[in-house]
Amino acid sequence: MKINYPDGRSFNNPSHSSLHASSAKKKLIFGDRGMTLEEEINESNKYYRSHDIAVIYKKPTPIQIVKVDYPKRSRAVIKEAYFRQASTTDYNGVYNGYYVDFEAKETKNKNIFPLKNFHQHQIDHLRMCQKQGGICFVIIKYVTLKRYFVMPADTLFLHWDAQKHDGAKSIQLQDIIDSSIEIKANYDPTLPYVDAIQQLIESGKEK
Amino acid sequence: MKINYPDGRSFNNPSHSSLHASSAKKKLIFGDRGMTLEEEINESNKYYRSHDIAVIYKKPTPIQIVKVDYPKRSRAVIKEAYFRQASTTDYNGVYNGYYVDFEAKETKNKNIFPLKNFHQHQIDHLRMCQKQGGICFVIIKYVTLKRYFVMPADTLFLHWDAQKHDGAKSIQLQDIIDSSIEIKANYDPTLPYVDAIQQLIESGKEK
Repeated sequence: MKINYPDGRSFNNPSHSSLHASSAKKKLIFGDRGMTLEEEINESNKYYRSHDIAVIYKKPTPIQIVKVDYPKRSRAVIKEAYFRQASTTDYNGVYNGYYVDFEAKETKNKNIFPLKNFHQHQIDHLRMCQKQGGICFVIIKYVTLKRYFVMPADTLFLHWDAQKHDGAKSIQLQDIIDSSIEIKANYDPTLPYVDAIQQLIESGKEK
Repeated sequence: MKINYPDGRSFNNPSHSSLHASSAKKKLIFGDRGMTLEEEINESNKYYRSHDIAVIYKKPTPIQIVKVDYPKRSRAVIKEAYFRQASTTDYNGVYNGYYVDFEAKETKNKNIFPLKNFHQHQIDHLRMCQKQGGICFVIIKYVTLKRYFVMPADTLFLHWDAQKHDGAKSIQLQDIIDSSIEIKANYDPTLPYVDAIQQLIESGKEK
């Protein structure tokens, strides 16, 4: 199976295909352009950078490197490495003087959004960034419904903390609709989520 | 005395026990700890996070993964991967509502700081972040002199652009002294560079 990455890389990898089987299938069935949420955000970030609107990047996947070969006259090859747990969220950057920090999550559910999509370290990180005055949120994509939401970190904290008491392991779509800003997939940018950031900033000022 | 680092590293340093003898001696002994600038910044960042002062991380090294094995009953092993050129600087985060973005560079020179330490993409990235209202700078460590400077990105831009005209391939130490904020290596935090960020913010407000 050939995998084309948004940054231009592509490779054939039989063992890799099983890893991305679900996303490949998703590409076939859903969405006219068949992009994952990560690809949509990365494309949007390119647009925002090239138009001087915001400078936001996805962080590289943290890797623990164990063995590197340095062949003569060619580039270093990593021969043994492992995926590490990230300490932070996946995306951060700057928009109009504001620090922006967020996580992006897809779900195939048509109603609930399972809280198991999040890890404690992501919650902790978002809380710390918000305390420092950052604009913190989650971009949620309902793959089946083709709906996108910018959910404020406060909504996530509320439901995350509540599960200890009420045992609810997920957020209802209606709760997301009520507390979040819905955004529509588009062209240039693919996902105009900075408009939602601007709304979050303005609603914060009103408080 | 055995020093245990939070990330699991440890080493014996017999002179560590006399750390508080005098400030001059402290400085000398500090050098004995043999930390790289990256380690000093990472330790400082841990301090700043744990004291709710700032949330700043080094970004993971970007890796292009080519081959991954998924052994049964054990974690995935990356068997072939390559180092990729980063698009951004190494460090970013949030301090008191401000987006912070910087690069860290060491030199063994005793006077000049060579501009070849920088890549065009780092200059471009710092310029874009500054345009968005970010606080952008470089932390320079003169390893031999044991001196540390927080150099505003504007100083870097000035010398970077000037080399096209005057051909100067480096910045003189005196120019760095004149334009930068010197910081002293310390304990808790190892490198109190957020004090310099605060000064950069205040001097920016005066303009």
